[in-house]
Amino acid sequence: MIPFNKPYLTGKETIYIEDAVKSGKISGNGKYTKKCQEYFESNYGFKKCLLTTSCTDALEMAAILCNVEPGDEVIVPSYTFVSTALAFVRQGAKIVFADSRKDHPGIDEDIIETLITSKTKAIVPVHYAGVACDMDKIMSLADKYNLFVVEDAAQAIDSFYTGADGVKRALGSIGHLSAFSFHETKNIISGEGGMLCINDERFSKRAEIIWEKGTNRAEFFRGEVNKYGWVDTGSSFLPSEVTAAFLWAQIENLQFIQAKRKAIWEKYYKLFSQPTENDFSLPFIPDYASNNAHMFYLVCENLQQRTELINKLKDNDILAVFHYLSLHKSEFYQAKHDGRELPECDRYSDCLVRLPMFFELTDEEIQMVWEVIRTPVSK
Amino acid sequence: MIPFNKPYLTGKETIYIEDAVKSGKISGNGKYTKKCQEYFESNYGFKKCLLTTSCTDALEMAAILCNVEPGDEVIVPSYTFVSTALAFVRQGAKIVFADSRKDHPGIDEDIIETLITSKTKAIVPVHYAGVACDMDKIMSLADKYNLFVVEDAAQAIDSFYTGADGVKRALGSIGHLSAFSFHETKNIISGEGGMLCINDERFSKRAEIIWEKGTNRAEFFRGEVNKYGWVDTGSSFLPSEVTAAFLWAQIENLQFIQAKRKAIWEKYYKLFSQPTENDFSLPFIPDYASNNAHMFYLVCENLQQRTELINKLKDNDILAVFHYLSLHKSEFYQAKHDGRELPECDRYSDCLVRLPMFFELTDEEIQMVWEVIRTPVSK
Repeated sequence: MIPFNKPYLTGKETIYIEDAVKSGKISGNGKYTKKCQEYFESNYGFKKCLLTTSCTDALEMAAILCNVEPGDEVIVPSYTFVSTALAFVRQGAKIVFADSRKDHPGIDEDIIETLITSKTKAIVPVHYAGVACDMDKIMSLADKYNLFVVEDAAQAIDSFYTGADGVKRALGSIGHLSAFSFHETKNIISGEGGMLCINDERFSKRAEIIWEKGTNRAEFFRGEVNKYGWVDTGSSFLPSEVTAAFLWAQIENLQFIQAKRKAIWEKYYKLFSQPTENDFSLPFIPDYASNNAHMFYLVCENLQQRTELINKLKDNDILAVFHYLSLHKSEFYQAKHDGRELPECDRYSDCLVRLPMFFELTDEEIQMVWEVIRTPVSK
Repeated sequence: MIPFNKPYLTGKETIYIEDAVKSGKISGNGKYTKKCQEYFESNYGFKKCLLTTSCTDALEMAAILCNVEPGDEVIVPSYTFVSTALAFVRQGAKIVFADSRKDHPGIDEDIIETLITSKTKAIVPVHYAGVACDMDKIMSLADKYNLFVVEDAAQAIDSFYTGADGVKRALGSIGHLSAFSFHETKNIISGEGGMLCINDERFSKRAEIIWEKGTNRAEFFRGEVNKYGWVDTGSSFLPSEVTAAFLWAQIENLQFIQAKRKAIWEKYYKLFSQPTENDFSLPFIPDYASNNAHMFYLVCENLQQRTELINKLKDNDILAVFHYLSLHKSEFYQAKHDGRELPECDRYSDCLVRLPMFFELTDEEIQMVWEVIRTPVSK
């Protein structure tokens, strides 16, 4: 049986967890939380990082920091995970869903401007499969219309964008705020987990308060105020040191993990670039984007072909899975959606299939997946 | 140095974490999550339990389930942790703060009725130090005025209330909903962590949806629907299997931990029941309440005496700490508060001090704490 995903343990996770417990501090914002945050700040150009219990929570923090409130509109791709929209819905926003690109499941940057109104407060690009959206286009719209950009970088750790200025910037370091995920399906993991990155320093102080239940506890422990209390809204967004210690063991091996994943991805790409008896498209990576080997997917011709492909793989003990369903057609949002058709989004909902992708996937297993897929699945 | 708190490791935590990783599933709602939830459901009479990333998150789920919205009022004690109020503030509620009892820091049950208006939606009693509020009084008000009761049972694991009917019920099993904490300072821990208990089955199905980002994923995996999607509001409230595996090791030792904590508490109580040269009150436990030995506190005569006591303990390498500050006087809420004086709450804010209390606290250390406190601290 080849699973779709298999969490990878570096071996140090439980050692660091025991160390955290022995230090007498396993609630949030301790030694390992700081180590993780400092690593990301030092290596990826994020101005300030705060670990969270999930990427959803990081997006909620971003929505609060942008002061999103009822009456505001937020532009979000419809082909994304529920949380991208939900975090802003919880603040009362109306979601204006954008279609995907023809060549990539990410947001179609060229239609964003047509969706901007006087009520628009933020744009939330999602770097699908860790492949960059065209951030120059998005940031220039944000400048022009005075909007916030929140990067949903859930899948985008260690991935980059090279803009017109020729500078290669880490995804998550470009928007005003960004959110990462360390869910077990991601490149580095802590089971559930996430991170908010703050690139616009206007948000830094307030982010720390919102993170710790609306209290100025962090300032208190730095000796900046002489007692701490309730000063703002917020929630308990911070993860335990158990979670952070686990993540630290993964971070230490990030480059090792990335090298392996990239080799797996390249192997897939090379095999699938050969002619087959099936029609499907391979992942497209624009020149401005890097590939962090988060995911290997195919885009089938239609829903029937995809269903047959998934079933054929399953018959061969290989688990491949489809991905998002158009959020604008969801039970929760369809009546609130403005009625625009989003055909590309619907196409990826019907036709995209993700192949097994994890650190321990062997060359033989990749070959097996290829052998099953290369032969016809649909008459 | 005697710390105020020291997390206790049973020794099985990292073994279960490794087991979770080896099973290939460390995101939420896996084997250990279910084991923990089933334990609490079987042993404490909670109808349905859902682990959460924090008690704050469990309270937020309760606020969403009660459909709390702008215009609603929620009655909350002012002497409590920020989250008790904040979770309802996030849904737009106005908080109506209640004073504490004269004999106990918990909510004064006898004034609750005077605070109920046509806008009141819920009452949120906090079982301070794990000692029950008078739930008969509170539940009969809820019946009379058709209100929801959300028990903030953050400190109240394995503690009980015996009502007029003579039945001994677990705290957290009496209100419509209740929230527990497994923060490192609690009797059993997972670093950060919490649990929502649902006693009114009308909430069960929706709770599961809200817990998993507003999706009907749980129903899908039980085969009750043939695909899952976005059907409601919610967030990522569920903890990882890493967190749940840690908690399971604690739960297995719950009775062992409780026996030890109760012995520590009794030792404190016996020592401090002797005459001293200082005036302070000891914890009061009403006949209807059990004692889960979560906390040992003293109530000093005034702020000066408490400050001197804390300082004297500190000079002797003993860490004792004060607790909450009146939320109705917080920077965030004072202008929104209706202006009522809450003198008992202010008194506990000024006068209550918590002594070191943790599993590994020795008899000798307890004796040392007593020796420092028995002699005068204030002229």
